[in-house]
Amino acid sequence: MTDTAAQAGELDVLCVGNSIVDVLAQTDDATLEKLDMVKGTMALIDADQAEALYAQMSAAIETSGGSAGNTAAGLASLNTKCAFIGRVRDDQLGDIFTHDIRSIGVEYATPAATDGPPTARCLILITPDAQRTMNTFLGASVNLGPEDIDEDLVARAKVTYLEGYLWDRDAAKAAFLRAAGLAAAKDRLVSLSLSDPFCVDRHRESFREFVTNHVDILFANEDEITSLYQVESFDDALQHVRADCRIAALTRSEKGSVLVSGDEVHVVDAEPVDSVVDTTGAGDQFAAGFLSGFTQGKELATCARIGGIAASEVIAHVGPRPQVKLADLVASRL
Amino acid sequence: MTDTAAQAGELDVLCVGNSIVDVLAQTDDATLEKLDMVKGTMALIDADQAEALYAQMSAAIETSGGSAGNTAAGLASLNTKCAFIGRVRDDQLGDIFTHDIRSIGVEYATPAATDGPPTARCLILITPDAQRTMNTFLGASVNLGPEDIDEDLVARAKVTYLEGYLWDRDAAKAAFLRAAGLAAAKDRLVSLSLSDPFCVDRHRESFREFVTNHVDILFANEDEITSLYQVESFDDALQHVRADCRIAALTRSEKGSVLVSGDEVHVVDAEPVDSVVDTTGAGDQFAAGFLSGFTQGKELATCARIGGIAASEVIAHVGPRPQVKLADLVASRL
Repeated sequence: MTDTAAQAGELDVLCVGNSIVDVLAQTDDATLEKLDMVKGTMALIDADQAEALYAQMSAAIETSGGSAGNTAAGLASLNTKCAFIGRVRDDQLGDIFTHDIRSIGVEYATPAATDGPPTARCLILITPDAQRTMNTFLGASVNLGPEDIDEDLVARAKVTYLEGYLWDRDAAKAAFLRAAGLAAAKDRLVSLSLSDPFCVDRHRESFREFVTNHVDILFANEDEITSLYQVESFDDALQHVRADCRIAALTRSEKGSVLVSGDEVHVVDAEPVDSVVDTTGAGDQFAAGFLSGFTQGKELATCARIGGIAASEVIAHVGPRPQVKLADLVASRL
Repeated sequence: MTDTAAQAGELDVLCVGNSIVDVLAQTDDATLEKLDMVKGTMALIDADQAEALYAQMSAAIETSGGSAGNTAAGLASLNTKCAFIGRVRDDQLGDIFTHDIRSIGVEYATPAATDGPPTARCLILITPDAQRTMNTFLGASVNLGPEDIDEDLVARAKVTYLEGYLWDRDAAKAAFLRAAGLAAAKDRLVSLSLSDPFCVDRHRESFREFVTNHVDILFANEDEITSLYQVESFDDALQHVRADCRIAALTRSEKGSVLVSGDEVHVVDAEPVDSVVDTTGAGDQFAAGFLSGFTQGKELATCARIGGIAASEVIAHVGPRPQVKLADLVASRL
């Protein structure tokens, strides 16, 4: 739970991203077919489609989601002080998002929009074979702009962490640049997750420019970093990013992670997992673990191990947020 | 084939190791049981045991073997000029070893011993399930000493490559130190393969001293390098070896390889293999590929890729030496 004293003090991480509520409900294959959905895929839908689909869904479970939101949840589970910036609308799902993320101890005060599209949601239909069919309506979250970047929050946070998915919209891009400028002015650090190889592909040049000029800590998986530099091998991408970024944390699924920071390079193995159930959120939790260690002043290799432990928890169950107290899990594994 | 002109010129690599003839024969499970052998293992045997076992084996295939010998064969297959130093006895298997290694184009002139134990052999019994049960008699190869290190060969070779297995005997250790001293005096490079984690375990301190003071290019797999530094994680070993060695090439099986040389670090993926049949000789061929590229002035990441290609060929079939012309394979893959 947040309290006034904590809100006034220093923050470890400020996360900026899409405010999305995940709405999960059971369904069957016949219903998916009737709704014209391709099982196992993610589709973007508009407001009307979202309302219509939600009306047809059975009793659902709602939980705050979104990439940077998941990272914030991981940070809270690691007892790392964090805040979140992202836009909801003043509607029912907006209330759920706000309540949910605050209740896990994340400081969240972005004012809800009083007009425009409703709160973003990802409507997830789960079939008996455990597959998830996702329909995302980005809604109010797409209107995040520079005015939403609270100068005081950026100044209080050791690291401001930005979700690359937002890069698709000009207003959000302007918000990122404002956050980066404010952080630099206060000697604070800027971190970016590349989020998605297709997103990188759409904005390669501006991403590269932002990475080179503003990012202190870059998170990317293998597909994203090879896309960023348009190279074929991981090692080629590694050589590029080493020259561009103060710290790069590159995740490689079962191959673990590679950390580079100037002369320092670490090759860290993946944590063992009995069985991989759902890889959604692995990158978000790696970032949470890494930043948790980093803001506590741990060595880079240890930060990567904490990231790996957090990721190993989330891929062992359905859902992109931790189901156990990550701080305890990390203490038992390190 | 070697010729006089080539022998007089510069060499790329001089390999120093055990001169072992592999003797392969088919057998059945009942025979293994009768001979009291544990299927799939390697045992050291003495001269009498070796003679008795050989007498009982069915029609066999003989081929020059040994770790550094396999590397020499790989280098020859890569059109890389190389020589080999290792001791045989003036007996039938010694003739086979000498003929065999010369016929593939490796310069080999270590005088055969005229007394002492017979030529080393590894008697390999292959059961119908494709398992190999090995019995190694080190014979004449254990008597390699400083006097066998030909000063002229060391001076002619860009790199002198030493097989760690020899480190078990004081005379061979003295031979290594002499080779390292001669190489250093001529501005030539010294390379060492750690060969085996148990060998590292037996001689950790002297290996470390040799690595720190004499080795320019170190080859080790994950078990060997973590044993050398008595650390648990690969990354910890990586940090140690980076400080100790001019170039370290660390092999990680399906995880590929990691190359470190001062500020330079490369993380190179393994080459794809349809099916792994027999991993014997993977490290030897990686070293061959790497040194082939290195002595041609290729970049470290390219050297590692050539090593990976050579290793991928040898693990796809039974036997520790290439079955295709590696130079052609590399040309088609790079």
